[in-house]
Amino acid sequence: MSSKGLIKRSEDFSKWYNDLVSKADLAEHSDVRGCMIIKPYGYAIWEKIKDQLDLMFKETGHQNAYFPLFIPKSYLSKEADHVEGFAKECAVVTHYRLKNAEDGSGVVVDPDAKLEEELIVRPTSETIIWNTYKKWIQSYRDLPILVNQWANVVRWEMRTRLFLRTSEFLWQEGHTAHATKEEAIEETEKMLGVYADFAQQHMAIPVIKGLKTENERFAGAEETYCIEALMQDGKALQAGTSHFLGQNFAKAFDVTFADKNGKQNHVWATSWGVSTRLMGALIMTHSDDQGLVLPPKLAPIQVVIVPIYKNPEQLDQITSYAKQLISELVGIGISVKFDDDDNKKPGWKFAEYEMKGVPLRIAIGPRDIENKTVELARRDDLSKTTLSQKDLSQKISKLLEQIQEDLFRKSSDFLKDNITFASTVEEMNDILNSKSGFVEAFWNGDSETEQKIKDITKATIRCIPLEEKSTGKCIISGDLNSKKVLFARAY
Amino acid sequence: MSSKGLIKRSEDFSKWYNDLVSKADLAEHSDVRGCMIIKPYGYAIWEKIKDQLDLMFKETGHQNAYFPLFIPKSYLSKEADHVEGFAKECAVVTHYRLKNAEDGSGVVVDPDAKLEEELIVRPTSETIIWNTYKKWIQSYRDLPILVNQWANVVRWEMRTRLFLRTSEFLWQEGHTAHATKEEAIEETEKMLGVYADFAQQHMAIPVIKGLKTENERFAGAEETYCIEALMQDGKALQAGTSHFLGQNFAKAFDVTFADKNGKQNHVWATSWGVSTRLMGALIMTHSDDQGLVLPPKLAPIQVVIVPIYKNPEQLDQITSYAKQLISELVGIGISVKFDDDDNKKPGWKFAEYEMKGVPLRIAIGPRDIENKTVELARRDDLSKTTLSQKDLSQKISKLLEQIQEDLFRKSSDFLKDNITFASTVEEMNDILNSKSGFVEAFWNGDSETEQKIKDITKATIRCIPLEEKSTGKCIISGDLNSKKVLFARAY
Repeated sequence: MSSKGLIKRSEDFSKWYNDLVSKADLAEHSDVRGCMIIKPYGYAIWEKIKDQLDLMFKETGHQNAYFPLFIPKSYLSKEADHVEGFAKECAVVTHYRLKNAEDGSGVVVDPDAKLEEELIVRPTSETIIWNTYKKWIQSYRDLPILVNQWANVVRWEMRTRLFLRTSEFLWQEGHTAHATKEEAIEETEKMLGVYADFAQQHMAIPVIKGLKTENERFAGAEETYCIEALMQDGKALQAGTSHFLGQNFAKAFDVTFADKNGKQNHVWATSWGVSTRLMGALIMTHSDDQGLVLPPKLAPIQVVIVPIYKNPEQLDQITSYAKQLISELVGIGISVKFDDDDNKKPGWKFAEYEMKGVPLRIAIGPRDIENKTVELARRDDLSKTTLSQKDLSQKISKLLEQIQEDLFRKSSDFLKDNITFASTVEEMNDILNSKSGFVEAFWNGDSETEQKIKDITKATIRCIPLEEKSTGKCIISGDLNSKKVLFARAY
Repeated sequence: MSSKGLIKRSEDFSKWYNDLVSKADLAEHSDVRGCMIIKPYGYAIWEKIKDQLDLMFKETGHQNAYFPLFIPKSYLSKEADHVEGFAKECAVVTHYRLKNAEDGSGVVVDPDAKLEEELIVRPTSETIIWNTYKKWIQSYRDLPILVNQWANVVRWEMRTRLFLRTSEFLWQEGHTAHATKEEAIEETEKMLGVYADFAQQHMAIPVIKGLKTENERFAGAEETYCIEALMQDGKALQAGTSHFLGQNFAKAFDVTFADKNGKQNHVWATSWGVSTRLMGALIMTHSDDQGLVLPPKLAPIQVVIVPIYKNPEQLDQITSYAKQLISELVGIGISVKFDDDDNKKPGWKFAEYEMKGVPLRIAIGPRDIENKTVELARRDDLSKTTLSQKDLSQKISKLLEQIQEDLFRKSSDFLKDNITFASTVEEMNDILNSKSGFVEAFWNGDSETEQKIKDITKATIRCIPLEEKSTGKCIISGDLNSKKVLFARAY
């Protein structure tokens, strides 16, 4: 058991995270630099995330499609800011064949199979998609295009962390095309809303919706909207972005449409994405020193039943009751595992399912069978209660809802308690070095000021909150009428 | 309308296929050599295929996971046959950075960012997965591992056809690890069965289960099982393969386990996959000169309702009835589209939904409202009937089941009618040059004989059918006691 234990969050949050990802069987590093292996249990959580988001995208009128993995090098150059942002870190395909080495030592690149133009493994797909939309769009009747893609992307990273920063990651990227600026902005904001709803209602992660500063904008966007979350160590994490791209890509790829009067106009664009990074946010928001804590809506196993017995007769009695309970639970859509593996002791199983974040654990022993009770343990607060078997499946269903709510309340309280106002840079630095979290401060909107604050505090402007309207005195320049924005040190 | 028409299958089957894929909005070629764009309607069909297969994999105990896109070059060399089969056609990543060209002309590969070891974009994942399984497997308690991956793969192709042969394609690859040979063979056969059931029950495509000859085996397999289907032009198409890999990859990557007695043994392996090629099989099995024909189980839209009206009052009446019908249909799990687009005429809509293979079309006019009827058209046989509105949703539900059955019966009859026995090579050649289809013939099991027949007839041995037991005289060597196998010209 002790070999399964984690270091405490308070001792070394970063090591705690790495240990947890490994010991909860979520993911591991591969031998390929920066690329991760998502293990079955981790992938099952990602599938829950993916399925729910996909449903929400479809409910808002989007369809899925699939575009090529490779992007011709020249496409990246067509949008000036975009190439600056993405060309520096990418995997470049230069050849299309290997051949046997003459010395028999294995295979080598065949120099005769050099590509005329190099191909880039997509870091994001705006360029290849807008090159395609050129063919799809002639008239206003072809608009809007509301397309999403689930895909893998590659951004070469030197320092990687499982889920948070990997060279290859999985994500979705929405790419929409509109006849008007207003409609494109509305779409950008709508999808930010979908992300925020998903984070809060399904991941139980409170987020702040805001705009990125010019410095932090997506390469090629006119405006980047984001949702920002706060991890337990007081660092911020950008959990999703939605970009209003203006007509930048339409101009770069010459995509125009004839409006109702026959006049040619450039098309307006948005793109928006979330990735396997959400797994990192999920882990760092809820989990504790015993392991993973999962909101019931995203738990691959919501309830585990562990029989406690000393002889086969007792196991038979327990199994007979458990089967009936399982059938009831499955009937109301609750996923349940009955772990009657005889090779492992109950204590080992308890620790294992705590590590894996199963929201509810039910233990049933001979005395429970006698008394028509079960012992029920909540993963989130580690509390235990004895419950009568009467109407048990209904009670479990309600309890799962309760856990979902409690997790969100707890993380929301944490967020509220960790937004602190600073009226000077020194104050900000003190806060960041003690309790950390988000720091609210007035900023004059200037990129140089932003950089100065970053140099002093190592904090960046996470966002200009959408709901924040107050103005005051900039902490660097002293400019009055500066906006209140959120700073933090971030992942 | 004529601009939307297809060339007839009988005139040019290959052009008919290309036209159909384009005009039904399924897919198109991208500017990136050999890579396709799967359009939203095509992708919606692929999603139906994927969801059903995923369910069947999970019901047979498999879990999904995700492994890296890139494979170090040296891994490919570890299994001798495997590298022969795959190294010849692959995308090779040699650099990880671009930089601005000095002449300002765009971006160029940064020569300082050359990888020490080249990375191959996965053509299939046996090597990277078995390199991982080495860490996952120590004891018999770690077995079996039943893992599947949904992913994109790249095999460089010079001659490409949408869905049938593309450089990048989407697929699933199952990779399982077992303690015994028997268990691995059982798994290989079980997954072949899953593929056959899926093809027959969901795609309405009859398939023949068999073994590949040594020549046609997967590179690195001891035995390749396959399902073979017959297209309307008489050519065969391999629709799925399941490989018994023996201990080849376990030996190449040194993967052993301790059995119950503590003895170290090499692990037994299987892999199995189907791809977006299934889309090609689906199209070429059922579709006709009017366009796509879809089995109801895979149709993104199962029923389309087209209102026929001359004024807004009529449209209102029709809409009011249609809404009630839609709500009933959705309630019993039928997907339905109401197309009241005022910019397009009913005739245009009829042709459009025929092209897209929507299984049932309902037209409702003022007289139908008066008589409490609808006009119903089946896509598969293009028949029309007038039906009373009474219990209509139930009738539609039954009719969709009927269409699914009828399509399978029709394709099964076609298959039966196109398996012809040949007792000489000349006979085989005559058959292949006239009616085409599968040709049954006796073959002595020798690779040279197989090659001779291929040289004469351009036909390959598609499979040694699992259920075929008869023996006879080889059509080339005259050896008695030769096996009866299936030949065909193939995609």
